[in-house]
Amino acid sequence: MTPAGSASAAAYARAVARFHRLAVLGEAAAMLGWDAAAMMPAGGAAARGEQFAVLAGLGHGLLTDPAAAEDLAASGVAEPWAAANLALMRHAHARAMALPADLVEAQARANAACETVWREARREADFARVRPLLETVVRLAREQAAALAEALGLSPYDALMDGYQRGIGAADVAPIFDRYEAFLAAALPAAEAYQASRPPPRPIPGPFPIAAQEALCRRLAERAGLDFAHARLDRSAHPFCGGTPSDVRITTRYDEADFAKAVLAVLHETGHALYERGLPLAHARQPVGEAAGMAAHESQSLIVEMQACRTDAFLGWLGPELHAAFGGAAELYEPANLARLWRRVERGFIRVDADELTYPAHVILRFRLEQALIGGDLAVADLPGAWNDGMRALLGITPADDAEGCLQDIHWYDGGFGYFPSYTLGAMAAAQLMAAARRQTSKLDTAPGLDAALGQGDLAPLRAWLGTHVHAQGSRLGFNELMRAATGKALDVADFEAHLRARYLPS
Amino acid sequence: MTPAGSASAAAYARAVARFHRLAVLGEAAAMLGWDAAAMMPAGGAAARGEQFAVLAGLGHGLLTDPAAAEDLAASGVAEPWAAANLALMRHAHARAMALPADLVEAQARANAACETVWREARREADFARVRPLLETVVRLAREQAAALAEALGLSPYDALMDGYQRGIGAADVAPIFDRYEAFLAAALPAAEAYQASRPPPRPIPGPFPIAAQEALCRRLAERAGLDFAHARLDRSAHPFCGGTPSDVRITTRYDEADFAKAVLAVLHETGHALYERGLPLAHARQPVGEAAGMAAHESQSLIVEMQACRTDAFLGWLGPELHAAFGGAAELYEPANLARLWRRVERGFIRVDADELTYPAHVILRFRLEQALIGGDLAVADLPGAWNDGMRALLGITPADDAEGCLQDIHWYDGGFGYFPSYTLGAMAAAQLMAAARRQTSKLDTAPGLDAALGQGDLAPLRAWLGTHVHAQGSRLGFNELMRAATGKALDVADFEAHLRARYLPS
Repeated sequence: MTPAGSASAAAYARAVARFHRLAVLGEAAAMLGWDAAAMMPAGGAAARGEQFAVLAGLGHGLLTDPAAAEDLAASGVAEPWAAANLALMRHAHARAMALPADLVEAQARANAACETVWREARREADFARVRPLLETVVRLAREQAAALAEALGLSPYDALMDGYQRGIGAADVAPIFDRYEAFLAAALPAAEAYQASRPPPRPIPGPFPIAAQEALCRRLAERAGLDFAHARLDRSAHPFCGGTPSDVRITTRYDEADFAKAVLAVLHETGHALYERGLPLAHARQPVGEAAGMAAHESQSLIVEMQACRTDAFLGWLGPELHAAFGGAAELYEPANLARLWRRVERGFIRVDADELTYPAHVILRFRLEQALIGGDLAVADLPGAWNDGMRALLGITPADDAEGCLQDIHWYDGGFGYFPSYTLGAMAAAQLMAAARRQTSKLDTAPGLDAALGQGDLAPLRAWLGTHVHAQGSRLGFNELMRAATGKALDVADFEAHLRARYLPS
Repeated sequence: MTPAGSASAAAYARAVARFHRLAVLGEAAAMLGWDAAAMMPAGGAAARGEQFAVLAGLGHGLLTDPAAAEDLAASGVAEPWAAANLALMRHAHARAMALPADLVEAQARANAACETVWREARREADFARVRPLLETVVRLAREQAAALAEALGLSPYDALMDGYQRGIGAADVAPIFDRYEAFLAAALPAAEAYQASRPPPRPIPGPFPIAAQEALCRRLAERAGLDFAHARLDRSAHPFCGGTPSDVRITTRYDEADFAKAVLAVLHETGHALYERGLPLAHARQPVGEAAGMAAHESQSLIVEMQACRTDAFLGWLGPELHAAFGGAAELYEPANLARLWRRVERGFIRVDADELTYPAHVILRFRLEQALIGGDLAVADLPGAWNDGMRALLGITPADDAEGCLQDIHWYDGGFGYFPSYTLGAMAAAQLMAAARRQTSKLDTAPGLDAALGQGDLAPLRAWLGTHVHAQGSRLGFNELMRAATGKALDVADFEAHLRARYLPS
């Protein structure tokens, strides 16, 4: 190695050590975040906030230390994973350096203040109360987007999206969402008519003891491949997947009257957890060893929950398991009834309650509105009206008030712009990945096949394919590169549409 | 304020900000430590070790940063709490600077290796197996002690003790322990004879369902004053008190056959927790706002568990509570029987199982031996013999093997020297504080008095007194200064002896 090569390798090694410490600070924050949601007594909140702030400050200090810039500038590596890692380091560094400290502080204050008032405003369905605070939040988010855009060479909105999902931008997303809108305009009434023509679901009467639900959820997560030597299942107000790759923490909540909420949430979070567990160990605690982004992450939760576990095959296995856990009439647990219960289409106002077919409409609305807010084409004062117009256009329904309209989600009121597309990109990617997995595994001689295995409650073939094509890839590829490598094409809507046609429309 | 005064105040403010961040790193590590013992799946251990190491490294970096030395040297404050804080900062800085990095690393490695082999050696009662590793550990601990001694102006052994409990040294402890040895030589046979002359305890037959034990433990901790808006009670292999002052986490373990272990452990840990909860908020996250040391901490757990909750008065209240929780024959729960069960004297080999009267003998033995090891007066090879000689001299019994002799405790094998005295200093301090609390509260007109309240299961008067004289003092005073301020004298053995005479000897 030449002395120059040696110096550039040494600089890279220092950068690796720095990002290792940064990642470990992130792990500590992740564990504290899990604790805050699942364990912490209410009185610990103020101290926890301070802990997050100090850990974030130390991390920011590590990243913006002049030595970091020097090492990154002097680094040189040839090996592809290392080169990808270095590019991601430089990207993270550029993002951190792009934002002036006073803007970061102003956003932290404005977002926290707005979020607090939003909670009251939503309760009272009173948009006017939170409007001035949201105006400040939007103004600062526009400043943030402009600063990031300049540093990253992206459009302002794409610079925000990039913070959640690298490797796909509004120019990719907009035509996909436009096509879905057109598809939905025909598919939704057709699905509703088809659904109306068939027997209604028969509800399964409870109560379902929480302890039995919890034991079942744990068994299902294990069956789906989660190793509890490296995981926990706990309770929180909103289900999530937290922790670290070697110690992943999923949560759910239980309703005595309805086991489906807990079961489906656990399958969803297990998909996230399997992704974390499958990240490349050789690159642990480096940017390239992390998950590829929020849309990629959502694809992994949805491929388990929606693509695999709501199939007729899996429901055929799951029904007797549920019956054994909860008792009652066996026929209620037959796959046809479970399918009618869990694959029901219904136009509604609330995103988080939406079915698979209409969910994208909620996201498309938000995607368009947040682009307009960040682009300056929509005033905050006009948001409620634009929201309701959009709902009418997309789903043909009009919210009765802003609580079931533009006040329903925390995201914008907390300063989060550019995240919403991840949900639907993840749903579409899940369908595209599932189609590719079916195609590719069907060529193999392995027994049983992917769907046959699902009929045995066995996700191993799917998990193996995802392990290779998604999990083990870490963050080496941007979103569309990952999709190309795994499925042969960038994200499009065809496989998702085919999936929805097969599941919701007459054949 | 003069410019010089202003500069020294500014330097102090920077030091305060630095120690604040250091304390928050400590809080994060404390929460992760609780999680590791109470929640973490086994597979998370390696990552957790790395998290501790990185947090510790960042903390060490904050403390040894040249800017820290400059600020501490330039700081000047007059207000007494600030002055005490500055002295503690300088003390912490001096300790951190005293140890060369290669010694710290060598100790970390040697201690970890020795502890691992110790686990096997204890299981096999095979001291020879761990001896060479313990020799390394002792050699490095002597180097550590010498380096700290030079920096702090203390003797080597006192420099180690100082790491656990500031403000009391071997020259204070040795005469106290000598006097206790003399007391015990007469008191132990007398207590045994007295005990033999009285009815034996009647065991309470189980099983005692874990859920009922847990609910009771929680109620007792609340009754003792622990606010669960700022606390949790969980399970771990060894009971402990962790977390942070606003979010304190106590643990215990449950045995279906014996509720006493869980109940007494929870009362003990609640004493620790009340100390943390009562630390001065105005000085939170500064050295002066921390607990005064390990002996002071142990005094707070033992004053609740031993001094308050094993009194006849409290047992008279507790009996019906236990009976309501577990059922069975009411007379088994009478205070006289609980006292015979929980205040039983018995010579034994194992420190952690020892009663209140003989426990100090275990500590005195270790205090003398660890001084000799650190002073170079005792070779590791001679430890087993010296141990057994000491047990014979102090308690008149000889361990059958080293597993119930010098292999029983983790402390030395993990590099911990100077900690053992804290247990007995804490027990003695608890008696001295209890005597002062009784004396001082009896002069007040408040109703009910301290002991009358204990008869109602109410620790409020004791808690109020400890809150003022111990908890709210933080770390402002060293151990003996704290004792003087609270009780009118430095620690001595008189009140502890009086307590033991009253409890274990005929009146």
